[in-house]
Amino acid sequence: MSDLAKYAHKTASNARVAARRLAGANSALKNEWLRKSAAAIRRNTRQLAAANRADLDAAPGYGLSTAAIDRLRLTDQRLEALAASLEEIVTLFDPVGEVIEGYVRPNGLRVTKTRVPLGVVFFIYESRPNVTVDAAAICVKSGNAVVLRGGKEAFHSNAALHAVLVESLVECGLPADAVQFVSTTDRNAVGEFLALGDLIDVTIPRGGKGLIERVAAEAKMPVIKHLDGVCHVFVDETADLDMARRIVLNSKAQRPGVCNALETLLVHARIADRFLPAVASDLGAAKVEIRGCSRTRELIRAAVPATEDDWPTEYLDLILSVKVVEHLDEAIRHIETYGSHHTDAIVTSDVRSAARFTSEVDSAAVIVNASTRFNDGGELGLGAEIGISTDKFHARGPCGLREMTSYKWIVHGDGQTRV
Amino acid sequence: MSDLAKYAHKTASNARVAARRLAGANSALKNEWLRKSAAAIRRNTRQLAAANRADLDAAPGYGLSTAAIDRLRLTDQRLEALAASLEEIVTLFDPVGEVIEGYVRPNGLRVTKTRVPLGVVFFIYESRPNVTVDAAAICVKSGNAVVLRGGKEAFHSNAALHAVLVESLVECGLPADAVQFVSTTDRNAVGEFLALGDLIDVTIPRGGKGLIERVAAEAKMPVIKHLDGVCHVFVDETADLDMARRIVLNSKAQRPGVCNALETLLVHARIADRFLPAVASDLGAAKVEIRGCSRTRELIRAAVPATEDDWPTEYLDLILSVKVVEHLDEAIRHIETYGSHHTDAIVTSDVRSAARFTSEVDSAAVIVNASTRFNDGGELGLGAEIGISTDKFHARGPCGLREMTSYKWIVHGDGQTRV
Repeated sequence: MSDLAKYAHKTASNARVAARRLAGANSALKNEWLRKSAAAIRRNTRQLAAANRADLDAAPGYGLSTAAIDRLRLTDQRLEALAASLEEIVTLFDPVGEVIEGYVRPNGLRVTKTRVPLGVVFFIYESRPNVTVDAAAICVKSGNAVVLRGGKEAFHSNAALHAVLVESLVECGLPADAVQFVSTTDRNAVGEFLALGDLIDVTIPRGGKGLIERVAAEAKMPVIKHLDGVCHVFVDETADLDMARRIVLNSKAQRPGVCNALETLLVHARIADRFLPAVASDLGAAKVEIRGCSRTRELIRAAVPATEDDWPTEYLDLILSVKVVEHLDEAIRHIETYGSHHTDAIVTSDVRSAARFTSEVDSAAVIVNASTRFNDGGELGLGAEIGISTDKFHARGPCGLREMTSYKWIVHGDGQTRV
Repeated sequence: MSDLAKYAHKTASNARVAARRLAGANSALKNEWLRKSAAAIRRNTRQLAAANRADLDAAPGYGLSTAAIDRLRLTDQRLEALAASLEEIVTLFDPVGEVIEGYVRPNGLRVTKTRVPLGVVFFIYESRPNVTVDAAAICVKSGNAVVLRGGKEAFHSNAALHAVLVESLVECGLPADAVQFVSTTDRNAVGEFLALGDLIDVTIPRGGKGLIERVAAEAKMPVIKHLDGVCHVFVDETADLDMARRIVLNSKAQRPGVCNALETLLVHARIADRFLPAVASDLGAAKVEIRGCSRTRELIRAAVPATEDDWPTEYLDLILSVKVVEHLDEAIRHIETYGSHHTDAIVTSDVRSAARFTSEVDSAAVIVNASTRFNDGGELGLGAEIGISTDKFHARGPCGLREMTSYKWIVHGDGQTRV
């Protein structure tokens, strides 16, 4: 066994031991840890800023863009936001011990299906150091031990934040190994952890498509994938066109670089001539480039031609592909052909179109008359999220505390035997 | 692409198309199919028996034991039981469309988390042909298309049963490809299907440990594993000893060849001298061989010595390992060290021991004062099961209709946008 393999094995084994203890920790204690960690972040802003400085100094060497360097920066305001987010997780319902179902069988057996933590989470992420704190908080509050593997660009910031979190664990009498941080930037370390199917219960990669696909291919344990969002809005013939304009603009331009942002607009042919010029002026004002089908280009002079490559593309940028469709069926077919089953919306006043769209579009979130940007843990009421699953298995869409749990069957009898 | 790869790809693609249609089929139609299939099985007993005869004739050539040949046999009585089991699934609640959660967000968005089918299931199983019918019924009722891969020993029986099921699908106007049967016994076919991570949503292997481990290692999609059950009963010092005798005997001997049968008995040292001789006489009458620790052997003359290899062993036979432990902690530690996290029971009158056992033993089912044999879909009220998951991810313990579903987030607004 290589040193790296030994390191991964020891780290994951320690996490397992911590996970067993953490599974029995009650909410009061886990919440105390969250509050103490928030206080410690506020108390240690100077040390955290110094660690962050080391990353910022190294950033040009990694070839980071100005925008990426800005995301890396831990300002006082961002540290305060981090502390506040920990305090928000205090207020969330602890899913551990929640009874999902419970009933009495005809023979008198009392059965409950009760939530338990998954166990050990391996969390791989890139860039922003605030993710270190969020992920640790969600894992620990849901009773899971976590092994954090951050990007090399944020190594010093992550290590400093990790140290603060561990100090608070120890202060609360919780196992220090409940939150571990991979202390090497060696790329091969990830592979060593992914091989430990017996010790790690789930791996969650958050980052680019390449990372996620590599992790899914290598991992010997379940993976919660967080792949791309080729999201659509379909404006139906019965849509309130003012509402549709607001929804399209918000879905595309409110934050174009995220997975639930709009990438392709589909417009019913009957209202295309009224709707497209109007929405084009909104989008133009927001500096959105339009790539349109031929019908679209007849109605929007500024549109450039869309090619077959545009329809399955997640731009993550101020670019929108636009297509005029004959009817709801064509819209649904387009979404099923080119979409990524992430988030798709319809704007309509017709109850049957709404029902067909929500039933037939097979996406994690299907939205009627609202922005695609609402497929988000905070917006859907989960309070905090560790990612948005593009899988159908175990968890779909935003993953909050509950999605980090499994369950056990607890059965109470008074001597029942099977006949 | 090899012919086998092409065949797998075409089969799985057809299943995907069928799955889309099936997802929108309402319960009435799916139930009609179940009833028509039951009637067709009753109508076609002669043809089914003839197909079964071909398998029975070939069985000695496969080296099947007399017991295995008996399990393969489709008698009139067994065919009637098969038809009746389809009618039972008619009575089960259809999980598709079930609202798991629903609420209104502060901004007025109405959110529901609604069950949808997983999609396409690849089901691999061995021996008994009745599994063909059960698995198809569970998959279709939960809105999933299924590709069935049975054992070669039951090939003709499975093919004949499959033909009956498909005929009923067509009669009901449901897609014939909702239930497909792998029409080759080529062993490499399984590998071709396991590679189709984009077309198949979940693989469920049911059979020996070797099969399941191979499938888990090769599959490019999620797998619901159904591994071994090294199940324990711990008889606490406060146990009602008569109850404990009944539970131990039932757990071990009622059906020793199944995964929820008892394999290791743990007995509290304080009651070992009263309990062990009594339970040994029950077990002796049931022809159970006892392999005991040294303390056990002092109390049970007939016991042979247990070795370190016995504790993690699933005998699936009339053999029981027995160990005397000092206290609850040692019992829990033993179970966590040697058990397989399947089914573990405690017999106790002490509420704190019961609570600690159910909380600290990390098994799919933890049982107080009842037989381990109750960890079963029928017994726990799921109505029918496609397997007992030994995973923590997605589904744990018995998998019935609900466990064959995912969910989608359905959001209704009236023009909401994000700020």
